[in-house]
Amino acid sequence: MSFSPLIRQLIEALRVLPGVGQKTAQRMALQLLERDRSGGLRLAQALTQAMEGIGYCSRCRTLSEDELCGFCADPRRDDSLLCVVEGPMDVFAVEQTGYRGRYFVLKGHLSPLDGRGPDAIGVPELVQRVEEGGFAEVILATNPTVEGEATAHYIAQLLASKPLVTSRIAHGVPLGGELELVDGGTLAHALAGRRPIGL
Amino acid sequence: MSFSPLIRQLIEALRVLPGVGQKTAQRMALQLLERDRSGGLRLAQALTQAMEGIGYCSRCRTLSEDELCGFCADPRRDDSLLCVVEGPMDVFAVEQTGYRGRYFVLKGHLSPLDGRGPDAIGVPELVQRVEEGGFAEVILATNPTVEGEATAHYIAQLLASKPLVTSRIAHGVPLGGELELVDGGTLAHALAGRRPIGL
Repeated sequence: MSFSPLIRQLIEALRVLPGVGQKTAQRMALQLLERDRSGGLRLAQALTQAMEGIGYCSRCRTLSEDELCGFCADPRRDDSLLCVVEGPMDVFAVEQTGYRGRYFVLKGHLSPLDGRGPDAIGVPELVQRVEEGGFAEVILATNPTVEGEATAHYIAQLLASKPLVTSRIAHGVPLGGELELVDGGTLAHALAGRRPIGL
Repeated sequence: MSFSPLIRQLIEALRVLPGVGQKTAQRMALQLLERDRSGGLRLAQALTQAMEGIGYCSRCRTLSEDELCGFCADPRRDDSLLCVVEGPMDVFAVEQTGYRGRYFVLKGHLSPLDGRGPDAIGVPELVQRVEEGGFAEVILATNPTVEGEATAHYIAQLLASKPLVTSRIAHGVPLGGELELVDGGTLAHALAGRRPIGL
């Protein structure tokens, strides 16, 4: 004997959420049923509206329900800077630093072993955007992983002939923590990228 | 600048799930939008069907989309035993022990400070079920908390005049672990409830 069919179906459906296994899904399903049915219905409606209504910004390719996302539609942002990231989540991370230029969102990173080449992640659209945009600088802010580095390197080569600066976010020791806990590769980058202290 | 309205609405709605805060909700929303929109739509449909279609079994008061739940409708179960628990989740916990009698599901425990008296948790329905059911034994399997104990005690008093045995699940040391880690109250119960070893 087990849960009724509708409860089983709900538990199974909840497991689509990242980090939710069988036990957590059971707890979520029963809690919603017992405590907050209107919240459950609101969630169902928000899911339907989001899954069906959200597409991609036609200019920067981030998630947006409008033709142009808020970042691209804002006339007050700096049109001379373009920041290239791997996904929509990264846009919000960069935004928190105070950056106020434009964005371009790739669909992840180059991954030849998985068959994800430049076309799959939107490199042609990026090149087109750069050619049309008249930027002074393109900042490559892909992740500091092997794949992210390779993706940044590949894009830098493609843009080498354009009349603009192509830059990569700095590698170095993160703020906080202790030097002895930093891995060797990061520390080597931090040493090589050392800068004179301006007093 | 922040997420678009539909994404914000989805993130807000996801926080209705137990254990899901702002960061987790963001990750869930973006992952569904980027990786699994059909899974998100399936979840929306399952939520709607469950929230609107699932009621309570008319006999044992557990969650069920049918008039009678699977436990009550099954003719092969032992009609002489009734197990009283605090919620639907407990039914599945008891079921895993191999118990195959009937169930009655309270709506939580007595909690006078929160204004939850016998009527609010379904004690009258329990008494009616006991009077109609012809049980030989009622097993009180409310939680081993102060409130659960008080609830069991209250129900036992109500049923004292009926021609049946009212029992409480045993308190004692749980299997596994070490004696020195068991709290004093539990160990006192285990000592008081000691039983001769039958060889």
